[in-house]
Amino acid sequence: MSQARTIALDAMGGDHGPAVVVPGAALSLERYPALKFILFGNEPAIRAELDKVPALAAKARVVHTDMVVAMTDKPSQALRRGKGTSLWLAIDAVRAGEADVAVSAGNTGAFMAMSKLILRPMSGIERPAIAAIWPTVQAECIVLDVGANIGATARELCEFALMGAGMARALFHIERPTVGLLNVGVEEIKGVEEVRQAHAWLKGTELPLEYRGFIEGDQIGQGVVDVVVVEGFAGNIALKTAEGTARQIGEYLRAAMRRSLLSKIGAVLASGGFRVLKEKMDPRRANGGTFLGLNGIAVKSHGGTDALGFASAVDLAYEMAQSRLIPRLAADLTTFHHKLEAAAAS
Amino acid sequence: MSQARTIALDAMGGDHGPAVVVPGAALSLERYPALKFILFGNEPAIRAELDKVPALAAKARVVHTDMVVAMTDKPSQALRRGKGTSLWLAIDAVRAGEADVAVSAGNTGAFMAMSKLILRPMSGIERPAIAAIWPTVQAECIVLDVGANIGATARELCEFALMGAGMARALFHIERPTVGLLNVGVEEIKGVEEVRQAHAWLKGTELPLEYRGFIEGDQIGQGVVDVVVVEGFAGNIALKTAEGTARQIGEYLRAAMRRSLLSKIGAVLASGGFRVLKEKMDPRRANGGTFLGLNGIAVKSHGGTDALGFASAVDLAYEMAQSRLIPRLAADLTTFHHKLEAAAAS
Repeated sequence: MSQARTIALDAMGGDHGPAVVVPGAALSLERYPALKFILFGNEPAIRAELDKVPALAAKARVVHTDMVVAMTDKPSQALRRGKGTSLWLAIDAVRAGEADVAVSAGNTGAFMAMSKLILRPMSGIERPAIAAIWPTVQAECIVLDVGANIGATARELCEFALMGAGMARALFHIERPTVGLLNVGVEEIKGVEEVRQAHAWLKGTELPLEYRGFIEGDQIGQGVVDVVVVEGFAGNIALKTAEGTARQIGEYLRAAMRRSLLSKIGAVLASGGFRVLKEKMDPRRANGGTFLGLNGIAVKSHGGTDALGFASAVDLAYEMAQSRLIPRLAADLTTFHHKLEAAAAS
Repeated sequence: MSQARTIALDAMGGDHGPAVVVPGAALSLERYPALKFILFGNEPAIRAELDKVPALAAKARVVHTDMVVAMTDKPSQALRRGKGTSLWLAIDAVRAGEADVAVSAGNTGAFMAMSKLILRPMSGIERPAIAAIWPTVQAECIVLDVGANIGATARELCEFALMGAGMARALFHIERPTVGLLNVGVEEIKGVEEVRQAHAWLKGTELPLEYRGFIEGDQIGQGVVDVVVVEGFAGNIALKTAEGTARQIGEYLRAAMRRSLLSKIGAVLASGGFRVLKEKMDPRRANGGTFLGLNGIAVKSHGGTDALGFASAVDLAYEMAQSRLIPRLAADLTTFHHKLEAAAAS
């Protein structure tokens, strides 16, 4: 479990660039001493940060570039003008086999578009997905797509199921992850045509996963399945809504504990409990959206995160790199596509 | 503000029937003494409950029927066989002008389908919506559609904006409610065609509301707008996900407070604060989905709620009945449709 793995880092990505990327990588290196890094970006700026963390400096190579993708660049602009930027070079290191995973806190749209162009979708896949790690009362689950694309065909939803199962196998070390299809509970309708068709296929096809049928939004956090499949519009809204609700309740809680002297004293005594709660709810713990369905792994960190949050994204990248996700997933997808064609022909 | 208003109650709806509906209505009557009720369902069962609450018995008329819609009936079955059921009669009382609003904790799909059939959509409206009241850090907002239909055209999203604004005017007493369109934040895509078109129309048309543009899922609970507009699939998933997240954090909090003696003592001292928090997070406080876009108002309570939760739905029904929502909304929708046609013609 301690093979050397090389992570390509876009050192200029995110709101803080090397000031977060470098100390974040250093934190991750403490946990995974086998890690190696290639940092792409402005060399003096990166060196200034690396000087503070000699353990990381010893395991890092710096590749200088002056070019960066701005957070405000449109994906189309980034594709036209992005060649040679720190983001581009980090992704290209994965394509070239110099690194196992690319991590960036930069412009999501540009990162996705460049990853698709440079790493290329896996055979038979048209739409990659972004997978998020979602904390549950049990442990964690994987939700995808949380916003790579809007809408998904039945076939794409089944592909998401296989991709998510592959990621769950890599991260949670479960051979047959459980999968649920996110749907609405109104009796009249019971979901769109694509969702119903995907349900029929997932139920009727022998796949390397345990399909559990439809689930509703309130079951995600209960951890009823390892993988939740949904198209990207509703998936993105669900993820953001959960984040917003957690923040909202945090605000309620702080206000409630300030309302009387007794509450304040109680809150101080219970501070150990509150610390555990805060850690549970810390969005930095589950930082990192993984692009799945490409011939290479790319992990997107939140743009505004700090070193602790960035380290979570690097940890995730390391765990993904440790697994043999891509070749296994390629085989699973090919088998699924064959079964689908055989069923259509019969 | 204390006009007599008559609420038609499906006494047999929900998991507990009259045992929840009757005490729920009694609670609401304490708050709004001007209320009157017509209760539809099994008369002996209703009378047995009414005997315990004489104040309500004095303001209630009972209309007997043996027929009920089962929670498991499909909407199509309910429409075919539903005539004469307690649910049907309650809705029909609104159509006949005997009641101002119908309230049921019964089968959502059947309730929606029957309401559409009996009350009929307002002129120019094809798809009604279900609006939910969503607690925010500021106060409350209205989110629609949370599941009446899947998908929505640009025109329907604009109609939802007007319906939601009408409801916000009725409940929050704001003349020009603020409205946001729920969208995804991924730079590459920025929403579906329908959402973009609705955005352009809402921005470019003079309407009796304050359009604030796109918002993301995490902003709903921050209370950035009075009305959040979204199609029903994503809206239902957002609502359920928020409910699930709140429950999940409640479980974290309870576990965190049990983890040490000090935490337990602190939690006891801070119990006043926790009580406030619990009230804030109580899903019964915001119980009640309102069907909008029909020639009459119908309010759906959660099927599994208790008397307190059912009373919230009745309160909501009363407040909606107090407002002159329907004629005002009809005028607003007609004006909007004219503007749209004029814009298309020019």
